[in-house]
Amino acid sequence: MAKEDPKSLNGVNIDAVVDLVEKIQEEPDVAATKWNALVNWKGGFQSEATIREFPPIMSDEPSALGGADRGPNPVEQILAAYGNCLAVGYAANATVSGIEINNLSIELEGELDLHTFLGLKQDHAGYNNITVKVNIDCDASPEALQTLHDTVSKSSPVGHTLGRAIPLKFEFG
Amino acid sequence: MAKEDPKSLNGVNIDAVVDLVEKIQEEPDVAATKWNALVNWKGGFQSEATIREFPPIMSDEPSALGGADRGPNPVEQILAAYGNCLAVGYAANATVSGIEINNLSIELEGELDLHTFLGLKQDHAGYNNITVKVNIDCDASPEALQTLHDTVSKSSPVGHTLGRAIPLKFEFG
Repeated sequence: MAKEDPKSLNGVNIDAVVDLVEKIQEEPDVAATKWNALVNWKGGFQSEATIREFPPIMSDEPSALGGADRGPNPVEQILAAYGNCLAVGYAANATVSGIEINNLSIELEGELDLHTFLGLKQDHAGYNNITVKVNIDCDASPEALQTLHDTVSKSSPVGHTLGRAIPLKFEFG
Repeated sequence: MAKEDPKSLNGVNIDAVVDLVEKIQEEPDVAATKWNALVNWKGGFQSEATIREFPPIMSDEPSALGGADRGPNPVEQILAAYGNCLAVGYAANATVSGIEINNLSIELEGELDLHTFLGLKQDHAGYNNITVKVNIDCDASPEALQTLHDTVSKSSPVGHTLGRAIPLKFEFG
């Protein structure tokens, strides 16, 4: 990846992003997107989530929670999704700012009290908090890096979905 | 799966769940769990999330968003995690209630406006809402089924994580 060619900085196809931004500026409704997943129960605590044409994501619970431990469990998958979202944010914003990323890893940890899920309390069943540790090696000045951190941590679609209360609607068939 | 043997109803190892409940009743701190994921950026908008010893979950963005479209994107992964969590909730609560599930699928759709993620607004970058359609075929009475729906939709750890505002903490290395 040559830094001289902004189109290939960080391997990001920034032209596609710029095209999308221009389309949305002409026609704001293009920004209104819908995303889907289909989950099929496979017996026990196992299920498979299918997204578009990709191989299904297998889900299970650890044996201590009554599962067969054949895959990450749903609350672990949430952390994975958040880290993956932040990685996109770093790649996108670094590229726009002309910062080359040499290496990026993100460690996530969430604390969760099982009382409510197990029916022992009527309280909060979800994460009490999520901690994100970002390890980045890049060619930015300390100030540019701080701006990058601020921009990414404050504009993540998954981060906003977790950090704010999202309306959840149900239809029972 | 013979309905006569509650241990194998729905393929759920309910003994393990009962053991865990008893342990937590004796020692409430056992309910305080921590979950982890490690995300490694792979160039462009691709990354891999590793959870325990399982094969990494590959993440990418569609080409219209500047990715190479080699896997579900992070906001799709959120829907997958929620559906997988609800599947566990149905399996667990149906089993406790003696309800045999013949078939269960869950369709999820989320609406998301791209303006904030693309830097065109300072607003909400996450899902505006998530709609869940539950298709279940089981041997429950209409009343028992309604109770099952209510219990599951109100006690999902991922559902609470999405439906409430979760504190997110950052450490920048």
